[in-house]
Amino acid sequence: MQLIPDIPSIDDSALAARLQSRIDGKTKPLGALGRLEALALRLGLILGTEMPELRAPQMLVCAADHGLAARGVSAYPSDVTWQMVENFLAGGAAVSVLARQHGLVLTVADCGVAREVPARAAAPGAPRLVHCRVAAGTQDASGGPAMSAAQCAQALQNGRDIVRGLPGNVLLLGEMGIGNTSVASLLLARLAGVPLAECTGAGTGLDAAGIARKQAVLEQALAANAGATGPLDALAALGGFEVATLAGAVLQAASERRVIVVDGFITSAAVLVAARLAPAVLERCVFSHRSGERGHARMLEELRAEPLLDLGLRLGEGSGAALAWPLLESACRVLREMASFASAGVAGPSAS
Amino acid sequence: MQLIPDIPSIDDSALAARLQSRIDGKTKPLGALGRLEALALRLGLILGTEMPELRAPQMLVCAADHGLAARGVSAYPSDVTWQMVENFLAGGAAVSVLARQHGLVLTVADCGVAREVPARAAAPGAPRLVHCRVAAGTQDASGGPAMSAAQCAQALQNGRDIVRGLPGNVLLLGEMGIGNTSVASLLLARLAGVPLAECTGAGTGLDAAGIARKQAVLEQALAANAGATGPLDALAALGGFEVATLAGAVLQAASERRVIVVDGFITSAAVLVAARLAPAVLERCVFSHRSGERGHARMLEELRAEPLLDLGLRLGEGSGAALAWPLLESACRVLREMASFASAGVAGPSAS
Repeated sequence: MQLIPDIPSIDDSALAARLQSRIDGKTKPLGALGRLEALALRLGLILGTEMPELRAPQMLVCAADHGLAARGVSAYPSDVTWQMVENFLAGGAAVSVLARQHGLVLTVADCGVAREVPARAAAPGAPRLVHCRVAAGTQDASGGPAMSAAQCAQALQNGRDIVRGLPGNVLLLGEMGIGNTSVASLLLARLAGVPLAECTGAGTGLDAAGIARKQAVLEQALAANAGATGPLDALAALGGFEVATLAGAVLQAASERRVIVVDGFITSAAVLVAARLAPAVLERCVFSHRSGERGHARMLEELRAEPLLDLGLRLGEGSGAALAWPLLESACRVLREMASFASAGVAGPSAS
Repeated sequence: MQLIPDIPSIDDSALAARLQSRIDGKTKPLGALGRLEALALRLGLILGTEMPELRAPQMLVCAADHGLAARGVSAYPSDVTWQMVENFLAGGAAVSVLARQHGLVLTVADCGVAREVPARAAAPGAPRLVHCRVAAGTQDASGGPAMSAAQCAQALQNGRDIVRGLPGNVLLLGEMGIGNTSVASLLLARLAGVPLAECTGAGTGLDAAGIARKQAVLEQALAANAGATGPLDALAALGGFEVATLAGAVLQAASERRVIVVDGFITSAAVLVAARLAPAVLERCVFSHRSGERGHARMLEELRAEPLLDLGLRLGEGSGAALAWPLLESACRVLREMASFASAGVAGPSAS
C-alpha cells in the first residue's frame, strides 16, 4: 500500500447547491444561523448527502515523548506524558470528562511515550489503549533529525491503520506529549515560512524568559535540520511520533471521507503536514477552536481555517474538539429536522 | 407581592477562593481551559457550591406582537409570529430542534400575539404552550406608549409567575415577535444613551434602505415617548409584551438564584431592563453569544458581558442559548469530574 493515499477533491457543486437551497428553505431568515449554516454545508459535502448524520464519533488521542523536552522547552517534565495517559484511561482528564459528556469513544495511542504505558483490558465503553510505539520518544531535534525516515513512515502508517480499524464517520483529533508545542512551532516555521518568534508560545506555562530559551533551542533545531524542507522530511526531522501518527490518521480519515475535527495547535500541525502531502484533506476538516497558544492563530490563517470557538483554550488533549462537538451535531440536526417555510406554513418576507 | 423582588449581590469571596483553588488543582496547566474556567467559577458562585450541577434546564420562549410592525420595521409580516409559535410547538423551529438535542424543556408563552395561539394538550416532554396574554399586541410606539403602566406591570408579573412554576435551577431565554429588534434598539438607545444609528440593524433581513426607514420610525418612537426615561417607564413606552415578560422572568430567576442563559439582542434587552431595576441580576447571567445583529455588541458592552460564542447568529428564539448550553454542562463537569494533580498522581510544573 502506498504511504500517502490519493485524496480527490470533493467537487460536487450540484450537491452544494441542493444543500444551500435546503438550508435557505428552513424556517429562519436567510443566513440567520450564521456560521452554523456554513458548517452544515460542509458536513453535507463531506458525507455526500443532504441529510448528514454523524455516527459513532471517535476521539483519537495520540501520545509520545520528545527528545527536545530534555532541553527545557516545557514547564513540565516528560514524566507527565505517561501520567496523563494514565489519567486519560482512568477517566480523570479533561478530554475523558468531555468525551464521556458527549458520547465520544476515546482511543489513546501510545505512539512512543518514553515510559511504555502498560496494556490493560478496557471495559466496554471505557477509554481504550492502543500500542503503536515507534520508539521510546524521539531524538533531540536540536542536534539532528528527531526520527529517521523509516520511523516517520512507520508512524504515518500506524495512524492510518488505527483509523482504518475505527467505526463511524467522524474522527476527532487529540494529543499529549510534553514538548509538543515545540514540534508544532517548528513545523509551522519550516513548512509555512513563519518567523519562529511568531510560532513560539508559552505552551503549558513558560514565562517570558522560558519562552526566550525555548525559542533559542528551536532556532538550533531548525539550523540542525536545515535541509529538511519537504513535508515528509520536515516531519521526520522536526516532528514527534504523535504528530506523525496523527498526520497518518488525518490522511486515512480523509481518504475514507470521514469528518475530521481538529483540536488546537499540535493537531493543526499534523493537519498542516497532511495538507502539504494531500491538499484536499482540508475539505474534510472542521476546526474546532482558536487556541490561546501563540502560533495557532497564524497556523489557522495558513490553513485558511475559521474555527468555531475562541475561548482561550490551550490544553490540547482534544479538549477543544470535544467542546465544539455539539455544534456539529446541531448543524446536522438543522438540516435533518428543521421545518421548511412550505412544510410549516410560515410566510416568507413581505414584498418590499 | 412587590413587583421587583430584592436581589442581593452574590458576595461570597470564600466560595470564590475555594472554587478557584479547585479549578487550579485540576490536571491541566494553570488557566489552560481558558474561559471555561471563568464559566465554571460563575456557575459555582450562582449555585452556591463547589460541585455545581445543572438540573432540569428550562427554555422559556416568550412571544408577542408589536404595533410598530405596521410601520414596516421588519422584513416579515406580523403573521409570522403566530406561525412560528405553531412551529415551535410542532417541533420544527431551530429552537425546537436544539432544545430536543440537549434535553431542554421548552415552554412557549403567548404574551400577547396578535392572533391568539389556541391552547392544546402537550404530550409529556413535548413543548408546552402557556397563555399570559396582556393584549393582542402592543400599540404603535411611534405614536405614544406601546403599553400602559398597568399592562407593563402585568407582563412583568406574568414572567415572574411562569418562572416560579418551573422546576430546575437554570432558565434559558428565548423570544419571538416580528418587530422586536426595534424594541431592543429603542431600549438600548433610551436606557444606555446609545445613538439610534448604532442600535438599529437589519433584523430578519432589511436592506440598507429598509434599515434607514426603520431608524426613522424608531426616532419617532423615541420622540413620542421622550419622558419615559426610567427603566419601567421606558419598558412600558417602548417595550413589547414578550420583552417585559422576559424581564419579569429574569428578575424571578435571579431572586431564586437560578442560572440565567441569555440569548441574543432581544433577550439581552430584557436583561438590560432587569439590570437597571436590580443590578445584581447580572451576576446570575451567562451570555451565550454575540449576535450578528447590529446593536448587540454594544449592548453586551453596556452589560459588561463576554459571550461564549461568536458565530454570526441572528435568529433569536433562544437558538444561541441552546447552542451554548453544552459549554455550561462542560464547565460543571470539569469541576465535578476532573481529577486533581494529587488524586491522579500527575507531576506539577518543573522548578524553573
